[in-house]
Amino acid sequence: MLMPFKTRIRVRFGDADPAGLVYYPVLFHYCHIAMEEFFAERCGIPYHRVMADDRIGFPTVNVQAEFFIPLAYGDEAEVEVTVARIGGSSATFVYNIRRVEDGVLCARSTSVHVSMNLDTRCAVPLPPRYLECLAENHS
Amino acid sequence: MLMPFKTRIRVRFGDADPAGLVYYPVLFHYCHIAMEEFFAERCGIPYHRVMADDRIGFPTVNVQAEFFIPLAYGDEAEVEVTVARIGGSSATFVYNIRRVEDGVLCARSTSVHVSMNLDTRCAVPLPPRYLECLAENHS
Amino acid sequence: MLMPFKTRIRVRFGDADPAGLVYYPVLFHYCHIAMEEFFAERCGIPYHRVMADDRIGFPTVNVQAEFFIPLAYGDEAEVEVTVARIGGSSATFVYNIRRVEDGVLCARSTSVHVSMNLDTRCAVPLPPRYLECLAENHS
Amino acid sequence: MLMPFKTRIRVRFGDADPAGLVYYPVLFHYCHIAMEEFFAERCGIPYHRVMADDRIGFPTVNVQAEFFIPLAYGDEAEVEVTVARIGGSSATFVYNIRRVEDGVLCARSTSVHVSMNLDTRCAVPLPPRYLECLAENHS
Repeated sequence: MLMPFKTRIRVRFGDADPAGLVYYPVLFHYCHIAMEEFFAERCGIPYHRVMADDRIGFPTVNVQAEFFIPLAYGDEAEVEVTVARIGGSSATFVYNIRRVEDGVLCARSTSVHVSMNLDTRCAVPLPPRYLECLAENHS
Repeated sequence: MLMPFKTRIRVRFGDADPAGLVYYPVLFHYCHIAMEEFFAERCGIPYHRVMADDRIGFPTVNVQAEFFIPLAYGDEAEVEVTVARIGGSSATFVYNIRRVEDGVLCARSTSVHVSMNLDTRCAVPLPPRYLECLAENHS
Repeated sequence: MLMPFKTRIRVRFGDADPAGLVYYPVLFHYCHIAMEEFFAERCGIPYHRVMADDRIGFPTVNVQAEFFIPLAYGDEAEVEVTVARIGGSSATFVYNIRRVEDGVLCARSTSVHVSMNLDTRCAVPLPPRYLECLAENHS
Repeated sequence: MLMPFKTRIRVRFGDADPAGLVYYPVLFHYCHIAMEEFFAERCGIPYHRVMADDRIGFPTVNVQAEFFIPLAYGDEAEVEVTVARIGGSSATFVYNIRRVEDGVLCARSTSVHVSMNLDTRCAVPLPPRYLECLAENHS
């Protein structure tokens, strides 16, 4: 089992709302960015190649998220990505978002992603190459 | 008890991803837009006045969402907003997102919003004017 | 010659930055929304059908914009769309963005859009159906 | 005179449109990100501290942009930032956006930013600390 995958994302001016805090839909954008990085780093294939080569995408079908501490403009976030469950044609990812400055856990999102054929838009079994890398990152 | 509040949102070119489907963080943006309209229409105060007059915001602290059918570029969405639970300083909103064309339920998000003083960033009791309008829209 | 096309867009919470003003890239999103509405209303074909039926898109290749007065969260914008120039495979649109409350001109963007085949990604002559509607909206 | 400031930005799934290309308002977001990095790296003050400490912002009042080659999902962009002109209370930045893979120039945006007091929302003379760093990055 590998160390959990982590990636850093700086909060941008355009990510923050009139209260100076990250607009919560943007936190899900951060999770998606972290997933893209996860595929590149841990599965050895950038997410756009997943789509182009294998005609597969991993749309989100279920999200459970808690926001503990708001991230503010000027903060840097660290997103940790782990795999909590692997199904036949789906996988559950957990995203822990921490503030880099003090390591405090700001948000956690647990998302179920389905393996979908981009042409038929139907669920398909997870291809072996992804199964393997997801298993290695199982928490 | 009032009829559930509903508002329509057209899917924009910039809302859709390379698969032609609405990028899932954007669906939460749609929910927030619907909440802003809800305050204006049902509570009689636009959300920016909530913030300016009462120095109160309603940040999201918990989200549970399911995405059943993807919305695509060209679709129009109807977001129905109801109030599922009212606490001392929080309220739970349910957002049902349907495709206008055929009425199919595409997504549902249940979000807990906390009543927060924007200056202290602390939770505060829901002011009476909001309590009343939330109660009228209880599902 | 028709009256200039106009559409209204409400500034959303997520559109505004920590200064409470519309983040300037979002103003270009507003212009694009207005262009989408223009196609639907004035050319009789929604922009997603332009892409799906005719395999044509109108990417922006040149922008000149001035921002006179910032739009703030809570404002409503009215975007006026006119056609300033029609070329063989391009058209120049002018977007005037006004604040609805007092009609003040907040921003103007002049954009050149090229008629592009989405499969070859090459410029193509403007199809007659668009030429006609653009001509009718020439300022 | 320093070497031009450069920063890299990876095109994200959520940045691309149904044609698979970066939605053009997002390119201006990239320019703003590069400007934020510029302040941190070249002026020694992160942009959020500019706003918090000096109560100054640099809103964009004029943009001239050309888009030569579309950036696509999967690309990495390099944004070069130089200062083309320094006025009493404004500065003109040039952003050259290249595709990292082959160095091709994809877009150029020339923007005038005004030094604005965030409380009065009025233009103010550029403070000496910024004047100096802008002068060092004059192209």
